Amino acid sequence: MQGCSEFDLIARYLSHLGAQRDDVLQGVGDDAAIVNSTGEPLALALDTIVQDVHFPADLPAHSVGWRALAVNLSDLAAMGAVPCWGLLGLTLPSMDEAWVAQFADGLHALACHHDLAIIGGDVTQGPLTVTVQVTGRLPRQPLLRSGVQPGDHIWVSGRLGEAATGLARWQAQGAAVIEEPLVQRFLYPTPRVSLGLALQGLATAAIDISDGLLADAGHLAERSGVALMLDPARLDEQASNYVSYQAVLRGGDDYELCFSAPADADAAVKQAALAADTELTCIGQAQAGDGVWLGGERVDPRTAGYQHF
Amino acid sequence: MQGCSEFDLIARYLSHLGAQRDDVLQGVGDDAAIVNSTGEPLALALDTIVQDVHFPADLPAHSVGWRALAVNLSDLAAMGAVPCWGLLGLTLPSMDEAWVAQFADGLHALACHHDLAIIGGDVTQGPLTVTVQVTGRLPRQPLLRSGVQPGDHIWVSGRLGEAATGLARWQAQGAAVIEEPLVQRFLYPTPRVSLGLALQGLATAAIDISDGLLADAGHLAERSGVALMLDPARLDEQASNYVSYQAVLRGGDDYELCFSAPADADAAVKQAALAADTELTCIGQAQAGDGVWLGGERVDPRTAGYQHF
Repeated sequence: MQGCSEFDLIARYLSHLGAQRDDVLQGVGDDAAIVNSTGEPLALALDTIVQDVHFPADLPAHSVGWRALAVNLSDLAAMGAVPCWGLLGLTLPSMDEAWVAQFADGLHALACHHDLAIIGGDVTQGPLTVTVQVTGRLPRQPLLRSGVQPGDHIWVSGRLGEAATGLARWQAQGAAVIEEPLVQRFLYPTPRVSLGLALQGLATAAIDISDGLLADAGHLAERSGVALMLDPARLDEQASNYVSYQAVLRGGDDYELCFSAPADADAAVKQAALAADTELTCIGQAQAGDGVWLGGERVDPRTAGYQHF
Repeated sequence: MQGCSEFDLIARYLSHLGAQRDDVLQGVGDDAAIVNSTGEPLALALDTIVQDVHFPADLPAHSVGWRALAVNLSDLAAMGAVPCWGLLGLTLPSMDEAWVAQFADGLHALACHHDLAIIGGDVTQGPLTVTVQVTGRLPRQPLLRSGVQPGDHIWVSGRLGEAATGLARWQAQGAAVIEEPLVQRFLYPTPRVSLGLALQGLATAAIDISDGLLADAGHLAERSGVALMLDPARLDEQASNYVSYQAVLRGGDDYELCFSAPADADAAVKQAALAADTELTCIGQAQAGDGVWLGGERVDPRTAGYQHF
């Protein structure tokens, strides 16, 4: 169906399923859902990665395990949540013991780094698909997508476009380039969990960049009801001899954070970046209006980033 | 790999992933995991159903949505948990709006019946696969698989073998038999949530029957370190002109509960069945030893039920 994106589908059919419950503080529509259990609020996220859609068939199993968890931890990072527990749904075409062992190693390594326990799940036969569900504690106010205020500065972590460039390198050359830093950025994304925690009480909104900066900035703008004015010069500085300006704008799979903070909080934001040992770049400012704007030109959301359908 | 079952794989590679955390009360190995959040303990389960593996490609989308949630609610039922929140991971080969609308209706109907909110998830492109994750509250002690005591009576809910028989009817005749009661039992399984709650403080252990009675009774026996002596006469009474004795023993997809309770609690168990409006049959007794025994013959676990690999 032409023009019917993943997001339209979710919005129309899957955003109001089941009962309405008073203990659901945030349902479909943010990086994770928030429920009010009898103690601290909890953030819950679930993401699926599918072979040949989200990763090439020849990707090392160790990376597949790491990435399946990383994309979920990135959602918790964007909420400012502390990862606690994960469940794994692994669908495998056949029983390849060596593959499973390496997959488990990759997932285990990232889980241990974030003190997350894998507490259950399901293994089934079928086309290679990995679903991970994670739950985190929210000791403070969550970072929602909807909090950007006019005047806020817009920030991104890390170096955008590197993962998409690394994926292209892998697809062209395969295992021969596995040690290249850009390829490693695709194979082993770094969920910005400690940055998300350091930004609590400071950032007004956050989203993780999975579908490309322009596409995900569009979600921030829409949910917050503001216009995001992005500065091409600052984004061009993220490009290099290896990473194109277009990859910076539209490349997916970065799993960096894009967030907003009051303009007078620049010093505190930089302090948080130091505390989380994460590079930050201020890429623009919010103002009244709508949409994402790049050097005064409005970005067409239909061509902003990666679409599954 | 011949002889390497789904369960062996999970046990070997996926049962100890990630960090060891003090707040995990039950990890891999029961119907659901249990975590101790800052308030009431929570039960978490995740199950995947794959087209052509767990259901035929021509199954109505409404049933696929219902079943994807039902298999998960059945896990919560087997823990004695109160369903609260669900996340949906839907992988679709193409954007078929009518299919998604019916799928959503089926899932919604069952979710509402159990006051469960679908709070988030992920829609991706790929071979048709549905993963649902559910979280429930545990107001009282959970029903684990490990609690069967020698002398306990063994009970099952509902009528075993009906779903497997209904599936065979569907595979032979398709939509022409959709209204037949046995086919409806496959299309719309009834997770025994209210029975699980009624059994709290009464049952010593429980499991839901997804892979067939003998196979799942084997998990109870193994986790509890007892022998389960099943009575062929009582099981034969569940067979009929339509449902074979073998389907009662080995048919999967019933999503009934198999549980144990002290022999002197028979009256209270029957009272709980009345309260939950669920038929119950006492099918045997536990004793010291191991394995599942049927009329004095030991059941070979390798041929007990359905195996994905």
